[in-house]
Amino acid sequence: MSPGLPLLYMSTRTKPTLESATSRRGFLQTTALTALAAGVATACKPDAKPAAATQAGTPTGGTMGPHDTTSAATAMDQMHEAGIKAFPAKTAGKGNQLLAPRIEKGVKIFEVTAKRIQWEKEPGKYVEAWAYNEQIPGPQIRVKQGDRVRLVLHNELPESTCVHFHGVELPNDQDGVPFITQPPVKPGESFTYEFTVPNSGTHMYHSHHNAARQVGLGLLGAFIVEPNDPLPIEAVSEDFVFVLNDGAHGYTFNGKSFPATEPLVAKLGQKIRIRFMNEGMMIHPMHLHGMHMTVIAKDGWNVPAPWKCDTLNVAPGERWDVIVNCNNPGTWAFHCHILPHAESDHGMFGMVTALVVQK
Amino acid sequence: MSPGLPLLYMSTRTKPTLESATSRRGFLQTTALTALAAGVATACKPDAKPAAATQAGTPTGGTMGPHDTTSAATAMDQMHEAGIKAFPAKTAGKGNQLLAPRIEKGVKIFEVTAKRIQWEKEPGKYVEAWAYNEQIPGPQIRVKQGDRVRLVLHNELPESTCVHFHGVELPNDQDGVPFITQPPVKPGESFTYEFTVPNSGTHMYHSHHNAARQVGLGLLGAFIVEPNDPLPIEAVSEDFVFVLNDGAHGYTFNGKSFPATEPLVAKLGQKIRIRFMNEGMMIHPMHLHGMHMTVIAKDGWNVPAPWKCDTLNVAPGERWDVIVNCNNPGTWAFHCHILPHAESDHGMFGMVTALVVQK
Amino acid sequence: MSPGLPLLYMSTRTKPTLESATSRRGFLQTTALTALAAGVATACKPDAKPAAATQAGTPTGGTMGPHDTTSAATAMDQMHEAGIKAFPAKTAGKGNQLLAPRIEKGVKIFEVTAKRIQWEKEPGKYVEAWAYNEQIPGPQIRVKQGDRVRLVLHNELPESTCVHFHGVELPNDQDGVPFITQPPVKPGESFTYEFTVPNSGTHMYHSHHNAARQVGLGLLGAFIVEPNDPLPIEAVSEDFVFVLNDGAHGYTFNGKSFPATEPLVAKLGQKIRIRFMNEGMMIHPMHLHGMHMTVIAKDGWNVPAPWKCDTLNVAPGERWDVIVNCNNPGTWAFHCHILPHAESDHGMFGMVTALVVQK
Repeated sequence: MSPGLPLLYMSTRTKPTLESATSRRGFLQTTALTALAAGVATACKPDAKPAAATQAGTPTGGTMGPHDTTSAATAMDQMHEAGIKAFPAKTAGKGNQLLAPRIEKGVKIFEVTAKRIQWEKEPGKYVEAWAYNEQIPGPQIRVKQGDRVRLVLHNELPESTCVHFHGVELPNDQDGVPFITQPPVKPGESFTYEFTVPNSGTHMYHSHHNAARQVGLGLLGAFIVEPNDPLPIEAVSEDFVFVLNDGAHGYTFNGKSFPATEPLVAKLGQKIRIRFMNEGMMIHPMHLHGMHMTVIAKDGWNVPAPWKCDTLNVAPGERWDVIVNCNNPGTWAFHCHILPHAESDHGMFGMVTALVVQK
Repeated sequence: MSPGLPLLYMSTRTKPTLESATSRRGFLQTTALTALAAGVATACKPDAKPAAATQAGTPTGGTMGPHDTTSAATAMDQMHEAGIKAFPAKTAGKGNQLLAPRIEKGVKIFEVTAKRIQWEKEPGKYVEAWAYNEQIPGPQIRVKQGDRVRLVLHNELPESTCVHFHGVELPNDQDGVPFITQPPVKPGESFTYEFTVPNSGTHMYHSHHNAARQVGLGLLGAFIVEPNDPLPIEAVSEDFVFVLNDGAHGYTFNGKSFPATEPLVAKLGQKIRIRFMNEGMMIHPMHLHGMHMTVIAKDGWNVPAPWKCDTLNVAPGERWDVIVNCNNPGTWAFHCHILPHAESDHGMFGMVTALVVQK
Repeated sequence: MSPGLPLLYMSTRTKPTLESATSRRGFLQTTALTALAAGVATACKPDAKPAAATQAGTPTGGTMGPHDTTSAATAMDQMHEAGIKAFPAKTAGKGNQLLAPRIEKGVKIFEVTAKRIQWEKEPGKYVEAWAYNEQIPGPQIRVKQGDRVRLVLHNELPESTCVHFHGVELPNDQDGVPFITQPPVKPGESFTYEFTVPNSGTHMYHSHHNAARQVGLGLLGAFIVEPNDPLPIEAVSEDFVFVLNDGAHGYTFNGKSFPATEPLVAKLGQKIRIRFMNEGMMIHPMHLHGMHMTVIAKDGWNVPAPWKCDTLNVAPGERWDVIVNCNNPGTWAFHCHILPHAESDHGMFGMVTALVVQK
């Protein structure tokens, strides 16, 4: 389990085998203990009857029949439970780590090396990946509007490559499109981009050479430009990058598939910002449970008037910035609502994570 | 044909066989008679030359060649015509029927039973379905903001299930996600949800367990929360729920495929509201002919400023509320504009219906 | 190459064969010469080190390794380069040509003939197409709000057909839906539409009979209605129609696939308008490099407040109008960001073009 993250799964059995099916009360008692131990007690109720119903003094009509009348149903449930219990699962490698620049004469210098690696996208499942600095997403580059930035790309791949700064309005010769704005950067070569950052917002850097393949394999990262004059609504406690992809590694959030996806964790009352970026080939309508999202920016540009939703359709190449006012405590499912991207008969997988609002 | 609905098809032949091809004038005369008989005379003109052209006193240049030079074309047209003539086709079963609550001590109580049924999705075509109260969409639940609501779920399915109230900002333990907020509700068991409804708008209830399969089979319904302070624009004559799906039953509107889809009927001058909900796995850009739609809400939240369109892209999990000012009389095609979801060589099918504006 | 268009490819080799791999300096020198000759010098820098870096007086860290260590990579690059060099490739046939009306007694009369043709969608690749007046998109029809318009359709196809004016709010009998508003127009027949144009905006005309096939084969065109009271933001130097399709002819812009797509050309400082129309079956998130787009209209209706983006998701049936302030000189890639619609191992193809901003 990732350090510092609360335990998210709310139910557990000491022996999660087919034989271990226990009474519902036993199930829930174990659940409650686990939840308390993990400090996220709000996410599960201590009794199967909702507390609210009890408060109302009315019968809830619940009639729990005998368990395990259908062993197939039980077997399915156990697979689903195992997935939830494993979340957030520990895997080797973590993407989107903030890359501190080296500063020379006022220029912020970043170096990224594109190379072939093995990437543990979910527990025990290693896939061939092409990555910047061995991370998927590549290291997070975060600068300020007006900064002078230099990015040095080293190509250790078996193919040529390049870097396009998607959304940043650069001089043409820094745009990173082989044979239109520069030659491709061949295997073993390096290339230097340098520019003054004109526009703020949530942007991306990724390959623009054989990109259907190279971006699908992982050559992508967040390029975030902080504005000179942020809006009041941008004052948040946490700022999350949330990269969607659906290429060679299947359905992923920030390079990992459920249960290896990382939950977003906030404290009750905090405002958080989420920066969605779609680096894939399909739309992904992102659905947050329990609270709505307030959309504040599209492709790095503030919207004329913020608008609210709980399901935000993110198309390839788009970036959307949203604010969530974390006023509802608990562990909330957060997933693509194209359900086959998130769940199968065997349980949740792929594009699923959680927003944990801690009391 | 459904009672009370006008005849929508504007042409008919007494013997719709390959041999019955008649002259164009005969065709149109029959058409006109049919239309008049149905009281929707505006939808078809009595002469092939547009009245307007005649008024202008100019030749319209129409030269109708001999018919049936291409028997394949005629055969195709007859298949297309047969589909239109059959609309709206009668089928067993009707979804989205308003469910009246039982009220106890101020709590609105709804009971839904999830069970396996046979569902006639189009004339004579029965499919296995999993449904709430034998309806697809499940019975419409309509409450007011601030209501105390209890929903009792009875599971008569061969699998575990649960209910998630998609878009309603509930306490975590009422969110309906197995192993995160509650145990799954096993076959033969029941489960009670109870909560005070915090936010208004167009929402949905559906399974959140093995959901890619269960929602595709029909475990879904509209959960509509009327606001305490409706906007003036919300004062409408008719309020339609319009659920899109594309799972195990193919392309459907409110659980039925064309020609079994139900038309929307309004009177000239009326304002109507349509609540689109996508419970499927694909986008469906809904195109209305003849009049535009004014978008007033997204996922139950009022948009900052209403905006107009004739083609509204509805992504999985999204809800969009629109107003149509029915100021253009006639029978108007209303369909998904991904054309293979609506038409084949054999004629219209799937995601097609009509808005009928009666004089 | 199309007459009057600047040379867009920025690199060239005198002998583009596998044996011709030269030193990088030689490559760039050739490039520079080509670029200068073409008058688009801004699109390529004369030295591999960015001028900016040189100005800053700092080492750029570039270490170009020996070339051609990977012959497969070189072979791939050469395929990519060949595609770019070929752009904009000359092909027979050009769609979307403005159709001048014949005017009789104040009525603007347009005639279109639907027939089967061979269409060169990319150099040397002819496909069967069904087209209006032998153009894909069909001839551009441009009228004013309030105009009296007559369109005469001649059907020389082997199937029945019709014309639907997508987005124009016509009387029902002019809506062009066989068996609902008119009989199909059979092979060899003609049909006349006539109406007064009520609403302005970017609309389309296309077949509404067996349309999944007929529109995919090319029976579509732009129907543009100029408003009586244009907004100040609509005062532009160039007005481009940009039809997306993904039917029988693969991924196309205005009927052509890269490298036969036509670039958009503007002068530095000009404002241009682009009218996106999706006549296909898939979404296409259109990504412009170097500058953002300001969205001013959806389906022909002005948005309440213009908003900015660099990636605009265009769904089937939708039209979006955007303004680009061409303030960044150079040749800018402009493509669908579903990357498999735009690039393969063999280089760019399909939904790729460029916006050329000339100094």
